[in-house]
Amino acid sequence: MSEADKDALVVFTPSGKRGRFPLGTPLLKCARQLGVDIDSVCGGRGLCGRCQVQIGEGDFAKHAISSRAGNASAWNESEARYHARKGIKPGRRLSCQVQLLGDLLVDVPADSQVHKQVVRKRAEVRNIELDPAIRLHYVEVEQPDMHNPSGDLERLLQALERQWGVTGINIQGLNVDLRVLQGLQQALREADWKVTVAVHRGQVLTTIWPGFRDKAYGVAIDIGSTTVAAHLCDLASGEVLASSGIMNPQIRFGEDLMSRVSYVMMNPGGDKEMTQALREGLNRLIAEVCSEAGIAPTDILNATFVGNPIMHHLLLGIDPTELGGAPFALTFNSGITLWAEQLDLQLAPDARVYVLPCIAGHVGADAAGVILSEQPHLREEVSLVVDVGTNAEIILGNRHRLLACSSPTGPAFEGAQISSGQRAAPGAIERVRIDPVTLEPRFKVIGSDFWSDEAGFADSIKRIGITGICGSGIIEVLAELFLAGVILSDGTIDGAAAARSPRIQLDGRTYAYLLHEPAHPEEPRVVITQTDVRAIQLAKAALYAGIQLLMDRFGVEKVDRIQLAGAFGSHIDVKYAMALGMLPDCDLEQVSSAGNAAGTGARIALLNQKARDEIEQVVKRVEKVETAVEPRFQEHFVAAMAIPHRNAPYPELGKVLPLPAPRYPEPAGEGEGRRRRRRVAV
Amino acid sequence: MSEADKDALVVFTPSGKRGRFPLGTPLLKCARQLGVDIDSVCGGRGLCGRCQVQIGEGDFAKHAISSRAGNASAWNESEARYHARKGIKPGRRLSCQVQLLGDLLVDVPADSQVHKQVVRKRAEVRNIELDPAIRLHYVEVEQPDMHNPSGDLERLLQALERQWGVTGINIQGLNVDLRVLQGLQQALREADWKVTVAVHRGQVLTTIWPGFRDKAYGVAIDIGSTTVAAHLCDLASGEVLASSGIMNPQIRFGEDLMSRVSYVMMNPGGDKEMTQALREGLNRLIAEVCSEAGIAPTDILNATFVGNPIMHHLLLGIDPTELGGAPFALTFNSGITLWAEQLDLQLAPDARVYVLPCIAGHVGADAAGVILSEQPHLREEVSLVVDVGTNAEIILGNRHRLLACSSPTGPAFEGAQISSGQRAAPGAIERVRIDPVTLEPRFKVIGSDFWSDEAGFADSIKRIGITGICGSGIIEVLAELFLAGVILSDGTIDGAAAARSPRIQLDGRTYAYLLHEPAHPEEPRVVITQTDVRAIQLAKAALYAGIQLLMDRFGVEKVDRIQLAGAFGSHIDVKYAMALGMLPDCDLEQVSSAGNAAGTGARIALLNQKARDEIEQVVKRVEKVETAVEPRFQEHFVAAMAIPHRNAPYPELGKVLPLPAPRYPEPAGEGEGRRRRRRVAV
Repeated sequence: MSEADKDALVVFTPSGKRGRFPLGTPLLKCARQLGVDIDSVCGGRGLCGRCQVQIGEGDFAKHAISSRAGNASAWNESEARYHARKGIKPGRRLSCQVQLLGDLLVDVPADSQVHKQVVRKRAEVRNIELDPAIRLHYVEVEQPDMHNPSGDLERLLQALERQWGVTGINIQGLNVDLRVLQGLQQALREADWKVTVAVHRGQVLTTIWPGFRDKAYGVAIDIGSTTVAAHLCDLASGEVLASSGIMNPQIRFGEDLMSRVSYVMMNPGGDKEMTQALREGLNRLIAEVCSEAGIAPTDILNATFVGNPIMHHLLLGIDPTELGGAPFALTFNSGITLWAEQLDLQLAPDARVYVLPCIAGHVGADAAGVILSEQPHLREEVSLVVDVGTNAEIILGNRHRLLACSSPTGPAFEGAQISSGQRAAPGAIERVRIDPVTLEPRFKVIGSDFWSDEAGFADSIKRIGITGICGSGIIEVLAELFLAGVILSDGTIDGAAAARSPRIQLDGRTYAYLLHEPAHPEEPRVVITQTDVRAIQLAKAALYAGIQLLMDRFGVEKVDRIQLAGAFGSHIDVKYAMALGMLPDCDLEQVSSAGNAAGTGARIALLNQKARDEIEQVVKRVEKVETAVEPRFQEHFVAAMAIPHRNAPYPELGKVLPLPAPRYPEPAGEGEGRRRRRRVAV
Repeated sequence: MSEADKDALVVFTPSGKRGRFPLGTPLLKCARQLGVDIDSVCGGRGLCGRCQVQIGEGDFAKHAISSRAGNASAWNESEARYHARKGIKPGRRLSCQVQLLGDLLVDVPADSQVHKQVVRKRAEVRNIELDPAIRLHYVEVEQPDMHNPSGDLERLLQALERQWGVTGINIQGLNVDLRVLQGLQQALREADWKVTVAVHRGQVLTTIWPGFRDKAYGVAIDIGSTTVAAHLCDLASGEVLASSGIMNPQIRFGEDLMSRVSYVMMNPGGDKEMTQALREGLNRLIAEVCSEAGIAPTDILNATFVGNPIMHHLLLGIDPTELGGAPFALTFNSGITLWAEQLDLQLAPDARVYVLPCIAGHVGADAAGVILSEQPHLREEVSLVVDVGTNAEIILGNRHRLLACSSPTGPAFEGAQISSGQRAAPGAIERVRIDPVTLEPRFKVIGSDFWSDEAGFADSIKRIGITGICGSGIIEVLAELFLAGVILSDGTIDGAAAARSPRIQLDGRTYAYLLHEPAHPEEPRVVITQTDVRAIQLAKAALYAGIQLLMDRFGVEKVDRIQLAGAFGSHIDVKYAMALGMLPDCDLEQVSSAGNAAGTGARIALLNQKARDEIEQVVKRVEKVETAVEPRFQEHFVAAMAIPHRNAPYPELGKVLPLPAPRYPEPAGEGEGRRRRRRVAV
């Protein structure tokens, strides 16, 4: 038996895949034959360094193998050249260059896997499996042969098939971009028939570069009504290289969604103006994240977008008028893949854009992003996912069934329509505690680390001042007032409490609570009025009623988990929100903030192409509930006006927060409730 | 048994399909259920008039049916309305409106069939089956329902599926044009949810119009190096509505292909200039045919293109430099479907363009068009198809095997490089007969109906004059001189013939033939010189050698049929071309002109989408022969320099034209042959 006929055992970890191969076989080849997941852009030419492995040294009883570093071939010229150029960490080797000389245990580190995991910070969510829609392939193309003439492209596709197994590109359709064809012959000849190509979803040749290239970038963008946020990602590592946000430039056409739709209805061509403003803003934002990461916008090969239905339509240049009134018909409710150019985006010339699907006229691609991020559709437990904004998007369900609706909460949770309300910005009161006996408050202000009763507080706010109260502060002060017995179950600020503290003050015909009296008269007082309580009650009742509708439809009386998405969800204290009855009762351990889940969903769709197919499928089977036409919505809304609720029990919340017994104004007394009833009767 | 339970027999002719249907069933519905081919754009709503049929009256023994006009329901309101609007021919009915009231024989006239035949003038070719890539469908779309929200597009696609069985549109890719989405909601609402859509190849929604529309147009364009020709077609009837041609605007960059490639090589950006010039010319040409037909260019939904490889690349904006030298590599050799916009064509905004595939670096999409038109790949007999231009494209084969090559004939056949030569235009001698005894000629001139020896000739040419000789005239005069024994087998004009006629005149050291001595000295003499004979010999030898190579490769000594494509092929007299040895011997009954076969191929691809798939498949299996690297080409070329050929026999030609015995100049004489040999020896 000659040397060439001998073989040796290779075991790859962590997969445990094993096999015998002839001596001299490159490890990458062994791995491919065994189906071991090892990355490579250069196709085994020692150029990309993606296929690094670690050689085991010693006896590994578990794998029944005795592995010696000497059983791996010594460094060859390619490997040394790569090391000189880029550096290989100690203990690592390029698996495409190392040949098998005897039994070996080969460990594939996580960063050498194609389908590596992009780790997410939160423990309760799945990591992202890296599988981007755009893949780079380095190929060496056969030169033309007059005896067997064929097109340069056909030889390139042949090389892609032979060297990479990519077979899905059919050029008779639109599967090769014309610009690629226009630059093909030059690129091939410039680099001596060695080129790198970008392939979109295994089907479309989108870009060609002379020589070797291993950098591919993508950007995930969340278009909110108020802010637009972008995350620039390295498609090879999944890493976020830069993130940034801008105000949505459409704000000049209207603060909220409905005022923008009105603008379109009142101003012919207004939709085009807003589309243009948005797209210009996107290009600025993209330029900004690129500059931060030191790349050019034209290096971006792929982009994904989420946004509510109106932002979605305006991004695509579709007049959103139909979304402004019943029946709220979407133009379409699938995801869509386009050229960046069709959206005037200055990315790579043939970059692709994927816009996630909208779910219904009020439940947009942002909600689809939230689903991708939070994955209620993969769990056995019943999840409630709420994204609170001017509209609240509500998703309820599990892997068997998923429901969605939108509920018109209005802007109160964002501090608007509140007498001392403001956006969450330095100077805003964001946390409040009230002594249940004296009714004296203590609070925290954005921009300061101190509570108001701590030494150092006064100094810390000297520069910023106390300017108002933001959404989370409103929730806390109302909940604390309720827990202290100042706010009654129907939301009335109890005038009788004025006897307990001078902070309860008559304010016209109702009462108010003085949260902060400024030292200097030019600074604003921060007061919680009866109207403020009503505004929050209306908002939380709308939210709760939407949730209740979905729970009815699903047939559950209790949810197993709650995720709060969006900026508001990140800042509120869940137990206070629950005490006010914004959310149904739930084990508080199972309630968490999901951060910007919509943006995360866009990033998942950017980094994992199968997630796009997944969300398309999920969106199709989501049961859409339109609150406006559900007869029970009004009934649920009225019951949810009470604090926390007229009849829903809160046993889980009660375990951590003793709720006062329901207490309504005396029918015969001088409370506001009776006065109103009287007015109605007149 | 109630009236409703009764049924009746329907027989459709010419298909003979028959079946029983309940009384009251519309005839179109019967036809669809039986798979009878009846056209409809409006889907049975009495709007389009495409589904007209003729009701049989009488007993039809062949079909075993007794049919009475009274068994068809009377005209209803829709039918009457259509008749008032557009007119229905006597005896015709709208099959969508007529209900079955008893046994009926229903004839479907050819013009009511979807897959009707577009009749071609020539008997030997297949008619075109109408099956355009663009189809119009009128649909009535469900309105949005808040209880079951879905996108307008999704409801439109549902209607297309339910009303038309169109299921191939997948919008997650690029299968709906963004502009269609942008106009969708307005179009649907403008016409009360009734719209007409254009679907490309059953897969892409390309246009949407409010209401009913039944006109769809396409244009087939043949881009020649010298002229560009367009045929505007009605996609519903297959009819050519207008045809026109322009000079290729690239002529200002160079008369022939190679000079244009040189221009690109010498002038950076020259390819872009030529692409722009061509595309501007195309837009002018398209505007011209549209104006002639009374439609707008934006009514054109589909275009097809053929052209040689260099025109093909320049149309697509691809630098043709690589085609200018070995190895003559095409950028790609498949057909391609693009948006008209990508080629700067001002058609409908989302019109599609299909460019036929090139076969090899010298054998272009024009040759692919010739194959589609002449169909050598469908016959059992061996066909030779020749398209003669500056390069001759040669296709040889049958349904088992097809070969193609290009041969560098040069421009002599087009009258260039000939001393008295000119393009085929008024004043050019195009037919020549020479008395074999006196050597006196008679001829015809383009622009006159008389032979030169007929009364009236002088008058008829008074205005146009006799300005030179065109390609077909050159072929005839040389063949006649050869048949009269003036030109010897090696191409020498025999000086000895000077004794027979003063028209044989010494011209330097060789002889010439005076074809025409003008009456007025300011008019040109038309003389055939030895150099002219040599130029034609070189051209015809190149052509024959290319043909011979393919015959060798195919393994035949004789072809069964010859088709001559292109303008030159339409004008030459085949037996003279054969007598000179341009073509191999063949039964002259089997030799025909194919006209502008390349342009016809473009028209076929426009009118029949399956022809596109067919030509893609055929082109892939064509065996490409590169004459430049075939060692035997030179040998064949030398043998083909003799007239008609050094050793190939012409028995078939001999049956209609007695060929003189081979005669070469005397080795010892003062003939040109010996002098040349002497010079070489010196």
